[in-house]
Amino acid sequence: MANFRDVHSGFFGVAAEQLKEAHERDLAIEADEGVHFERAWLDPEQGKVFCLASGPSREAVLRVHERAGHPTSEIYELLVEVA
Amino acid sequence: MANFRDVHSGFFGVAAEQLKEAHERDLAIEADEGVHFERAWLDPEQGKVFCLASGPSREAVLRVHERAGHPTSEIYELLVEVA
Repeated sequence: MANFRDVHSGFFGVAAEQLKEAHERDLAIEADEGVHFERAWLDPEQGKVFCLASGPSREAVLRVHERAGHPTSEIYELLVEVA
Repeated sequence: MANFRDVHSGFFGVAAEQLKEAHERDLAIEADEGVHFERAWLDPEQGKVFCLASGPSREAVLRVHERAGHPTSEIYELLVEVA
């Protein structure tokens, strides 16, 4: 399993409730791909959404997002972490 | 205090040790701005670095990164979080 961060742009003015609904659409189907969307964050002013997911591959993460109706070309594998 | 995620692009092939050194340059001066860089992640293949910081403002986060030698135009305030 690897960790992935994906980025969605253009979500200006999205409300917390809408982010929650979108996240729950991922959660509802993620098991089909062996993916888990752990958390999502929103900057409504700049229209950015970030998701943190674990799963077998970038492609698996993308397939869940596609089926949930919010594909993105930006999915990054978090190979290195420092604190 | 607010939480911020910033994004740096073009860091292709960066090594873990280089990320650690860059992160430590932030840590060394962050107190001047009341900022704390909690964690940083790297996708070396796609050249992306993400940082998670807490602090008083985007401008304060940017000032630390500028002085540490790695400014970025992408600093997002994580106003909403869902899990």
